Amino acid sequence: MVVAGPADSDSRYMAIAVREAMRGIGFTSPNPAVGCVLVRDGRILATGYHRAAGGDHAEVAALRSIGFAASGSCAYVTLEPCNHTGKTGPCTEALKAAGVVRVVIGVQDPHGIVNGAGIDRLRSAGIEVVVGVLQSSCEALIAPFRRVVTTGFPYLTLKVAASFDGRVADVGGRPVWLTGQDAQFAVAELRHRADAILVGVGTVLSDDPRLTTRRREGRLGKNPRRIVVDSHLRTPTNARVLDGGATIFTTISQDSDLVRRFVDRGNEVISVPCDATGRVNLEEMFRECVRRSWHHILCESGPTLTTALLFGRWIQRVAWFSAPMFGGAPHLLALPTSIGVGTMYEGPHIVDVAVQRIGKDVVCIGDVFYPE
Amino acid sequence: MVVAGPADSDSRYMAIAVREAMRGIGFTSPNPAVGCVLVRDGRILATGYHRAAGGDHAEVAALRSIGFAASGSCAYVTLEPCNHTGKTGPCTEALKAAGVVRVVIGVQDPHGIVNGAGIDRLRSAGIEVVVGVLQSSCEALIAPFRRVVTTGFPYLTLKVAASFDGRVADVGGRPVWLTGQDAQFAVAELRHRADAILVGVGTVLSDDPRLTTRRREGRLGKNPRRIVVDSHLRTPTNARVLDGGATIFTTISQDSDLVRRFVDRGNEVISVPCDATGRVNLEEMFRECVRRSWHHILCESGPTLTTALLFGRWIQRVAWFSAPMFGGAPHLLALPTSIGVGTMYEGPHIVDVAVQRIGKDVVCIGDVFYPE
Repeated sequence: MVVAGPADSDSRYMAIAVREAMRGIGFTSPNPAVGCVLVRDGRILATGYHRAAGGDHAEVAALRSIGFAASGSCAYVTLEPCNHTGKTGPCTEALKAAGVVRVVIGVQDPHGIVNGAGIDRLRSAGIEVVVGVLQSSCEALIAPFRRVVTTGFPYLTLKVAASFDGRVADVGGRPVWLTGQDAQFAVAELRHRADAILVGVGTVLSDDPRLTTRRREGRLGKNPRRIVVDSHLRTPTNARVLDGGATIFTTISQDSDLVRRFVDRGNEVISVPCDATGRVNLEEMFRECVRRSWHHILCESGPTLTTALLFGRWIQRVAWFSAPMFGGAPHLLALPTSIGVGTMYEGPHIVDVAVQRIGKDVVCIGDVFYPE
Repeated sequence: MVVAGPADSDSRYMAIAVREAMRGIGFTSPNPAVGCVLVRDGRILATGYHRAAGGDHAEVAALRSIGFAASGSCAYVTLEPCNHTGKTGPCTEALKAAGVVRVVIGVQDPHGIVNGAGIDRLRSAGIEVVVGVLQSSCEALIAPFRRVVTTGFPYLTLKVAASFDGRVADVGGRPVWLTGQDAQFAVAELRHRADAILVGVGTVLSDDPRLTTRRREGRLGKNPRRIVVDSHLRTPTNARVLDGGATIFTTISQDSDLVRRFVDRGNEVISVPCDATGRVNLEEMFRECVRRSWHHILCESGPTLTTALLFGRWIQRVAWFSAPMFGGAPHLLALPTSIGVGTMYEGPHIVDVAVQRIGKDVVCIGDVFYPE
């Protein structure tokens, strides 16, 4: 068997595949971002990434760019190649037909219809397969995808902007522009990467946000679906979040006049059952989100909804923007208000925190860990 | 005139002088930490730093190590050389006598009895003098010293350890061990660098801390003076902070039995006038601290005293340790409780924030800016 490159350069080529994959982040939903690099005799023949659902998978994008002539090469792919015919043909067949002799995979596909079958198919065709190179980077690329296919619920990233002492609003609940422009652009990146942005009606009433994506000049940005959780339909009909269409989850019956006022203005109102407190049942709401392929949801919620999301253990990841100022007054809103635990140790922790200064501000990003 | 080294290497040698100076931090009070490097023909002849008050100044320490034979050399010194005879002779004379022909100074000495006189003396002796190389690093070395000599008040660093949402204590005010061991060692470094540690009686009552310095194994540490602000003398006589002697500032008359109980156990009680609220007058207290050469004070205060310190604009620097967890419950203590401002913009900001992950935690350090 011809081996396309020495094994110790696997990480280097996989890192390039990860970078390729990242070009697709925010555009591939409901598919995950995937990257591929084809290497022969220590030279990169081609790179490719998945640009959008329905389009070529990363492997095929790379192969197509060189006319599927990849005889004797090694393919580095961040996610296990698919083995089924969906909107595109199976990537395992494409790799085999093009003459690829070795496939290095970042992470096995957790989706039930792949989950090792692609690896088996490649191996039974006599192709050498290595799995788990740069696994944690490749895992990070598919975190929302993994959450959806393994639980049926969406992946939630909580974004908070607070003063050092945890205050998110000014005296009297007035909105306050805490973070600087660099942090605003970082939030735009988070929005771009999400399928939907979630707020509660409280944030709509106090801040009247647009929740659109304003990235740095010259960069394409996507405006994710905007979702308002509004149990009793208190959203003003002239709220800016409704401009261009938004989705309101409520408990109010679909055929009420109140609902019709929003629908007539081009918005969508989805009625879901109440929970025990008479509010929108979050489990039902999130199942509906997955049905609509809103897999990665950015929560820009205020104290009330954030508290409910943390209490319900819905949040997977936190991006905490700290503005280096003191809120001070005790009547200023802090976040979250209550997560219903006996002591702090029982509350959610953030692990594997990455931290950086961003303009005058600081951002900490990490995964949420809920103690048992 | 012989120039000892090219001017573009000035920053490089001054950086070495700064590193020398840092070896003395925590040991030189009430003097600032100062470092010196002697260079001739592109070679370092000697380095020196100020080890302790009463001992050699940095310049003399460097000169002494080479028998005061520094003819034709350039001296890099982080702070303007002194020109007066205090506990040691004037450094300007020592440099001149040793044959130094060029002196590069980080920052002019703000002390009234130097403040340019050293520079003038060197220049009038025909020595070339350059001022302001790596000035901000050299300024940082003397920040507490500058504060004292220009205002008569001590330099205060506020240390806070809080959850992401700004909580500093658990349910019912119970102390909570928020940060990890790496952060604890970083706090030990802060303690080592300070002349005194300040807490309020509230912290003594709730946490009963020792406030001693436990640095990493093998490193020398200094236990700064421990100060308790206790207006009405509520400190328990068996409080751990009193072991080995502490200073209590109170408003209770010196000749009361209550005071005598503390004094008899080897502690010091200082009575100062009340402020308008019947509490210790902070201005009087800080004047007394400076009289005792407690120039750099680390405040490990809780919500009440911290609020008073921020409200009174006493804090110069903040070291904010963030533990990546959620306090959550609204009845948990946040810090500070109130700084008496109308909106957040009017409150103190932290500027030039340096941020780093430290173990599982995050620390942000910066200077406090009080808007007008």
